[in-house]
Amino acid sequence: MAEPDDHSLERLQQRLTRFAAARDWQPFHTPKNLAAALSVEAGELLEIFQWLTPEEAADVMSDPDSAHRVRDEAADVLAYLLQFCSAVGVDPLAALAAKIDRNELRFPVPKGPGTPQAAD
Amino acid sequence: MAEPDDHSLERLQQRLTRFAAARDWQPFHTPKNLAAALSVEAGELLEIFQWLTPEEAADVMSDPDSAHRVRDEAADVLAYLLQFCSAVGVDPLAALAAKIDRNELRFPVPKGPGTPQAAD
Amino acid sequence: MAEPDDHSLERLQQRLTRFAAARDWQPFHTPKNLAAALSVEAGELLEIFQWLTPEEAADVMSDPDSAHRVRDEAADVLAYLLQFCSAVGVDPLAALAAKIDRNELRFPVPKGPGTPQAAD
Amino acid sequence: MAEPDDHSLERLQQRLTRFAAARDWQPFHTPKNLAAALSVEAGELLEIFQWLTPEEAADVMSDPDSAHRVRDEAADVLAYLLQFCSAVGVDPLAALAAKIDRNELRFPVPKGPGTPQAAD
Repeated sequence: MAEPDDHSLERLQQRLTRFAAARDWQPFHTPKNLAAALSVEAGELLEIFQWLTPEEAADVMSDPDSAHRVRDEAADVLAYLLQFCSAVGVDPLAALAAKIDRNELRFPVPKGPGTPQAAD
Repeated sequence: MAEPDDHSLERLQQRLTRFAAARDWQPFHTPKNLAAALSVEAGELLEIFQWLTPEEAADVMSDPDSAHRVRDEAADVLAYLLQFCSAVGVDPLAALAAKIDRNELRFPVPKGPGTPQAAD
Repeated sequence: MAEPDDHSLERLQQRLTRFAAARDWQPFHTPKNLAAALSVEAGELLEIFQWLTPEEAADVMSDPDSAHRVRDEAADVLAYLLQFCSAVGVDPLAALAAKIDRNELRFPVPKGPGTPQAAD
Repeated sequence: MAEPDDHSLERLQQRLTRFAAARDWQPFHTPKNLAAALSVEAGELLEIFQWLTPEEAADVMSDPDSAHRVRDEAADVLAYLLQFCSAVGVDPLAALAAKIDRNELRFPVPKGPGTPQAAD
């Protein structure tokens, strides 16, 4: 069913748009509602980790059920982020590239003698 | 500075990894901490909308300051989601594609006579 | 079972402490974990409202199931807030009183001729 | 300015109601908006802890600035929870008491020989 570029961000964003349109969910998918849903889903991802020690959290993917839940909630976060971006007309990849550019200026890499480091 | 494929998800994920490594931030970037940070950033995106009417929220991008803030917070959410996915070894695009596949089975498109609709 | 002052905040905070102690849950109830759990529960409360119009949201308590869910999630938020405050040694009521005092200075009441308004 | 019972939950809830009314903020204080604001504030509380180790988080109140920030954000969470409860007509203390009652049935205390434990 999946074709090679089925996994590009743009293609997935289109699938999400068509998925919602086919079910008449668009009236619910306002920017405000999608921002709320994104926050709710991020909370569900955090819920997996809330009682874990740092060590247990680092090992979360070794349990198949937990691993499935992590992938599922991460997918939900990405789904609502992409739908939010569609609703407000933001290109998420361009926004992130611009943010990293700004952060490279805001947080310069500490350079010491003998430790030359490229910013990126 | 930007090359054509600078905006691919994989390339941005690599930039984020190198950005954190160059600043020795990796010890902080545990799965649990990144899930918390993702949730915090999703809250900051929601904060923009919390007192807006649905109409004001739909018009949020017409104000340059609000538009910048929306792009900035959406970028932060994506940044932490990608860093989280790197930390736990999840491919976010594959996870989303699998989730959409499951949702197409879980929420079949209502079909009536004369309104044939493809699921995707 | 309930006595008159069973519903005081202090009494409920004590019940929560004893509840956790009796189940050996205290090692999990660190300030960081409780702050995460509080955020997760606030997300679950928001989830009830995420797709509702403002009108539907205003009417949420007229449906018994929704009303129960709202009370249940509000209770969870309060439970984790009180447990968090116990863990860090903060008096939530004193903290709120101090915050309202500060906000009354920060947001003075607009006064016009003929519309005398007391700040509190 | 503060009287003995100024710190009761009911009194603080009244102060919050009058504070919002005096500033004509009530139209913004819908159940949905308040649930969103509560979630946003819970995120701001979590933000204090997001990069801390469990040890650093346990010591957060020893730094005066961090301690102030914790009290301030905890107060904000309580403020929005109380305003939310006012908006939907929920008694937060009664809701919590009922929830603890349910949880005592749902999570019975493990009892072993020689370790009799009362549920509360």
